[in-house]
Amino acid sequence: MINIEDVKNARERIDEVTRGTHLLHSMTLSGENDVYLKIESLQRTGSFKIRGAFNKVASLTDEEKAKGTITASNGNHAQAVALASSLNGVKCKVCMSEKALMSRMEDARRHGADVIVVPGEIEDAVKEAKRLADEKGYIYIGRDEDDLVMAGNGTVGLEVIEQMPDLDAVVVPVGTGTLLAGIAVAVKAVKPDCKVYGVQATGASAMSRSFRKGEVVSIPHINTFASGIAVLEPSRSAFEVIKEKVDGIITVTEDEIASAMLALLEKQKILAEGAGAVTAAAVMFDKIPESGKKIACIISGGNVDINVLNRVIARGLMMNDRRTNITIQMDDKQGTLARACNIISECGGNILEVHHDRGESNIQLTSCYVTFELETKDATQARLLRETLEAEGYQLVRQ
Amino acid sequence: MINIEDVKNARERIDEVTRGTHLLHSMTLSGENDVYLKIESLQRTGSFKIRGAFNKVASLTDEEKAKGTITASNGNHAQAVALASSLNGVKCKVCMSEKALMSRMEDARRHGADVIVVPGEIEDAVKEAKRLADEKGYIYIGRDEDDLVMAGNGTVGLEVIEQMPDLDAVVVPVGTGTLLAGIAVAVKAVKPDCKVYGVQATGASAMSRSFRKGEVVSIPHINTFASGIAVLEPSRSAFEVIKEKVDGIITVTEDEIASAMLALLEKQKILAEGAGAVTAAAVMFDKIPESGKKIACIISGGNVDINVLNRVIARGLMMNDRRTNITIQMDDKQGTLARACNIISECGGNILEVHHDRGESNIQLTSCYVTFELETKDATQARLLRETLEAEGYQLVRQ
Repeated sequence: MINIEDVKNARERIDEVTRGTHLLHSMTLSGENDVYLKIESLQRTGSFKIRGAFNKVASLTDEEKAKGTITASNGNHAQAVALASSLNGVKCKVCMSEKALMSRMEDARRHGADVIVVPGEIEDAVKEAKRLADEKGYIYIGRDEDDLVMAGNGTVGLEVIEQMPDLDAVVVPVGTGTLLAGIAVAVKAVKPDCKVYGVQATGASAMSRSFRKGEVVSIPHINTFASGIAVLEPSRSAFEVIKEKVDGIITVTEDEIASAMLALLEKQKILAEGAGAVTAAAVMFDKIPESGKKIACIISGGNVDINVLNRVIARGLMMNDRRTNITIQMDDKQGTLARACNIISECGGNILEVHHDRGESNIQLTSCYVTFELETKDATQARLLRETLEAEGYQLVRQ
Repeated sequence: MINIEDVKNARERIDEVTRGTHLLHSMTLSGENDVYLKIESLQRTGSFKIRGAFNKVASLTDEEKAKGTITASNGNHAQAVALASSLNGVKCKVCMSEKALMSRMEDARRHGADVIVVPGEIEDAVKEAKRLADEKGYIYIGRDEDDLVMAGNGTVGLEVIEQMPDLDAVVVPVGTGTLLAGIAVAVKAVKPDCKVYGVQATGASAMSRSFRKGEVVSIPHINTFASGIAVLEPSRSAFEVIKEKVDGIITVTEDEIASAMLALLEKQKILAEGAGAVTAAAVMFDKIPESGKKIACIISGGNVDINVLNRVIARGLMMNDRRTNITIQMDDKQGTLARACNIISECGGNILEVHHDRGESNIQLTSCYVTFELETKDATQARLLRETLEAEGYQLVRQ
């Protein structure tokens, strides 16, 4: 098991290449507790992972460095190992499954890696990377069972306590658990009375279940869009640390994660990936068993696919009544649509799209359904819109 | 005209309440030049404006402070004056036009202000605020013609040169020009050979035209979504500084601003409002007349309406072939749609929506148009999809 000296040594190794990221006070998230955000999304490569990867690669012997590194990842680990290798003057290969986003492949290449696209799933890419390591002598850089990676990740904990020595609790996203384990080692050594909590997605809660059961358990399948923490099984070495040092593991739902992402973006101007936003979700939805305390949430990364972000925003807008759909059963007569449009506009709604549907079996032949997709300001305006349309004789179809 | 001492005094006043924001190297934007980003979007209230507003309010006499402050703004200035007042223990009123976003009103209230909603446009809110100041004795806090505001804004320039003493150029967004003027005073005093450039939207280029003409000119109307810099006329006091100290004013188009916003979000994990992204746009589209230099772009704020952001992202996705629309003229026969869906799926496209259109006058009665809205990876995949569908006998309709 790693100790605080390992983390301090890591700190010395990585200090020149990593960024000391901001710890920002969040007025939006503060309520029960006083909440601070540690913005590892602004770390180099867009996540904390460069800390562990750099510590690992910098610790290789000259002989190992000369052999070159290899890893397999469709996500943040790929970029981190690529940059860590390039900064150490080490050649790097990254195996990615064919399903990886093109942008992720480009990111790894931009950081100097040679990307090998492997047919199938990420597990196939891992197999291929290990096979190549065996065959060609490349040094395989894993994520999960490596003490140097864990110690590097733990430097986040050292930093956060230095930035706020009177912190009461740190809240950390959990996938395999190496970030949480590293931070727990650092925080509990420097400030033993500071609580350390982990957060998982309800749909990928292997560590939470393992923690409860006191032994490593895996889950049969995953159901979360937070790909950065979507794992079937915890890291065993991380689990040993977490079992001993962590105060609790909390879970949050997909809707809670999406709400937190939108709040971070809109109120804090911080782009967090799903995995990075789970800690903010835990605070927003009062899942942390603390009150009146100073709490630091680790926002672990910001590498979210922009298509996913677009859908998260759309969902968040619907949830906040800032995107509103209204369906009207309308007489198929001249002028009725124009009048409805006028009413909507006078109430301050902005029409994005209009859909006609004449084919429903349960409406009269001279009628049709018209659905308006609207931009609205808030629930009050959305209600005003509906009420005004009804008062003007339009028949709204409940959805 | 303000001088460096004014900016240094401002620095002392605001130092405890403002954040020394990151200056991050941007690999994505670096090319011709080495580009750094000064992230004022992570400043308190989400923009640099707290610097000027706090300097102004903190400089009021006790007698003035007792009277309370008032301002008029639908944007960043409102929050900034609200927070600056509350931090100085001063009561604050903010006049907003009825068209202001609800979220902006809430932001001002959250920072302790009493929000007065005024019918009509922002100009009406300004009139009302000035009338109330006259009638009730409140101290009116303007944005444009106030030396203390300009000096406070100038602290960004002091900071950026301290963070990078060998900087060659600073690039600054320009609306009325008080940020650019303040920064120019600071930078040219500390490092006279550092270039200072301003950036405006092509559709709101009053300062650019004034700079070229050598006298203040106003423009008849505005055409930009970058509301933070959408002004008809420059600040006169800012213009006097800019005319003397600034090396050039550059303009960028709406598409360039949108592309820059998407790049900042996706690659740098930075949420910038349109006004905040113009500097990144100027660098991305090679508009800065420098080469091989160290350049700092001021990302002035991140207060973008999320509905606007959603549209910017959608547009950016289309521009990058990551959202693709394909329209097919299809025989109205069983199985043809299913087969098309299979082909799309096998090529890795993700179907978001399918629209049918049977009504076009120039197609046969037994045919219809089907439009697929797809998520795609890149231009290569989008082309593959089109080619495969055509090879399988589908007739694509060019758009």
